[in-house]
Amino acid sequence: MGLTLAEAIKGIKPSSEEWRQKAKNHLNNLAIPQGSLGQLLKLAEQLASIQRSLTPSVRSKAVVTMAGDHGVVVEGVSAFPQEVTLQMVGNFVVGGAAINVLAEMAGARVLVVDMGVAADLDDLVNDGKILSRKVGYGTQNMSRGPAMTCEQAIQGLEAGINLAGDLVREGVELLATGDMGIGNTTSSSAILAVFSGLPIQEVTGRGTGIDDAALEKKIRVIRQALDVNMPDAKDPVDVLAKVGGFEIGGIAGLILGAAYYKVPVLVDGFISTAGALLAKQLAPYTLDYMIAAHQSMEYGHRLMLKELGLKPILNLDMRLGEGTGAVLAMNVVESAAQVIGKMLTFEDAGVTQSAEVNV
Amino acid sequence: MGLTLAEAIKGIKPSSEEWRQKAKNHLNNLAIPQGSLGQLLKLAEQLASIQRSLTPSVRSKAVVTMAGDHGVVVEGVSAFPQEVTLQMVGNFVVGGAAINVLAEMAGARVLVVDMGVAADLDDLVNDGKILSRKVGYGTQNMSRGPAMTCEQAIQGLEAGINLAGDLVREGVELLATGDMGIGNTTSSSAILAVFSGLPIQEVTGRGTGIDDAALEKKIRVIRQALDVNMPDAKDPVDVLAKVGGFEIGGIAGLILGAAYYKVPVLVDGFISTAGALLAKQLAPYTLDYMIAAHQSMEYGHRLMLKELGLKPILNLDMRLGEGTGAVLAMNVVESAAQVIGKMLTFEDAGVTQSAEVNV
Repeated sequence: MGLTLAEAIKGIKPSSEEWRQKAKNHLNNLAIPQGSLGQLLKLAEQLASIQRSLTPSVRSKAVVTMAGDHGVVVEGVSAFPQEVTLQMVGNFVVGGAAINVLAEMAGARVLVVDMGVAADLDDLVNDGKILSRKVGYGTQNMSRGPAMTCEQAIQGLEAGINLAGDLVREGVELLATGDMGIGNTTSSSAILAVFSGLPIQEVTGRGTGIDDAALEKKIRVIRQALDVNMPDAKDPVDVLAKVGGFEIGGIAGLILGAAYYKVPVLVDGFISTAGALLAKQLAPYTLDYMIAAHQSMEYGHRLMLKELGLKPILNLDMRLGEGTGAVLAMNVVESAAQVIGKMLTFEDAGVTQSAEVNV
Repeated sequence: MGLTLAEAIKGIKPSSEEWRQKAKNHLNNLAIPQGSLGQLLKLAEQLASIQRSLTPSVRSKAVVTMAGDHGVVVEGVSAFPQEVTLQMVGNFVVGGAAINVLAEMAGARVLVVDMGVAADLDDLVNDGKILSRKVGYGTQNMSRGPAMTCEQAIQGLEAGINLAGDLVREGVELLATGDMGIGNTTSSSAILAVFSGLPIQEVTGRGTGIDDAALEKKIRVIRQALDVNMPDAKDPVDVLAKVGGFEIGGIAGLILGAAYYKVPVLVDGFISTAGALLAKQLAPYTLDYMIAAHQSMEYGHRLMLKELGLKPILNLDMRLGEGTGAVLAMNVVESAAQVIGKMLTFEDAGVTQSAEVNV
């Protein structure tokens, strides 16, 4: 059932310019020196433009942490072995991971989704602890051929799109992306290299903490993946299939779905922003619905944000993923909604305006 | 009654190095790639070191917004007229200001304190809407002589110190500073110039939004204030008296009090950090208790943070004051407390450690 990728792409419209302007006018009359709440005001405008309201609400929040494994880990590109993906899913389920603790602080629901872990997770799925949208048991080794088929790429994207739809129908007003997948910085760097055209060594970082030798190997592996597969930057599904990951497809889909259903979506760090790059290539108006949560320590992340023209809310030298940066930024987004919804204007408050500031 | 300035300074001790080390050891065992939560981990260490606990709590929070007027406004250094200080206090009281809305989001109490507004606020004080620690009806014009007497400077500092004490006794676990005072960026730039030795034009910005001509005038006025008063950088009370403000003294005092009573204090923007500079000059260990909330748009603020060696949590191009940046950062501080208090270690979670990362 659900939406197809083509239907979603066709249905994604820009957010309302009219409501952005209404919001801007309202915010210019708040009893503060003009613009003095900086990026909070930009966020408030964006929320108003998406929700077509001067009292936007983002109280109901969910972070979707997509998990998947990567065949390329056999090349030794990660500091951690593949089984850690599975173990961390287990940690998410018992509630002891960073994403659980930070999402609880943010008042957000955590949804863990098996997009393609290289293990059977039926028990967790049957117990309702995680969702399964499994596309496969880990991707293929992208340095030898495509990570997945085009059908699998589309399946992952559509799973994300329809998951966004389910959550929006359940009342979620603010979505956030997250990832878990040993090896997924390798895939994300490859995606960035394809779309940006930047040199591989510039877009490749240390991920969870590899040493110099492993970093050199990682760069070689990515070069090989691009040489072998020749992904077509003009065809995002081809890029996802050849050098992507199941969880990255799910994230891209979630962002497409957020835009289709007109809900703002907080994009987490390096892996999530690789998903955002794919989503933007598939449907440029998705940008109107994206909020960059934080600036990751992974060097390539700033290059991704530059490609997208997004300014991150936080810059705390984080590089964990899971959606941790996204949930940490939720409070700021919610604060922006409160600023536009609740603050008094100069007139309401009986405060004298500055002649210099308001002309 | 209360503490004297001398008693407070004498009683300020460094936070616990032993507990910082314990926290670091614990955090290194969390089931995440080492250090991957970046600045959150540093904040967690700081909280543990202050509270001597691996489960620090900062749930009970208060922002103290200190208001005062500045005689120097007669020189035309601000975009807003002096009566706006009074009007904004009124706005704080009805709950329509940015600080009210953002503090509510943060779950923090707002305490508005009249440190030296140039008007009678007895009605608001008697109604319990604001506190009075009034040192005077606005400072003197610092470009003609000292802004206040040394006795007044000490009175303001002691008011802040003892207010911190009152709040800590009421159970507050996280303090935050805020300011309201037309003209107070002029005073703050002067304080920065004295302590940093930097050229006046480098430390002086547009405040609430003055034009080029007013900026030139502001620089001239600050130069004159320094020439006339010759504040002694080695004597912080002299600096506060000659070029400070009543609310700035209150803020410096609050920070001293936080350190004395071993409570972390979120320092807001440019004006609050001028207070932090004074506090640090009076008692260097106050630094252990300070958390820089955000990087203000006011250019000199980055110079102040550099002087103090503090890295701000947020960088949202804000320049409003009131404590808005400080309350917006509270959620991140609280999240840091949760990270150390609630996350599982590799061992707890049964997650394989990376040989490369943990040696």
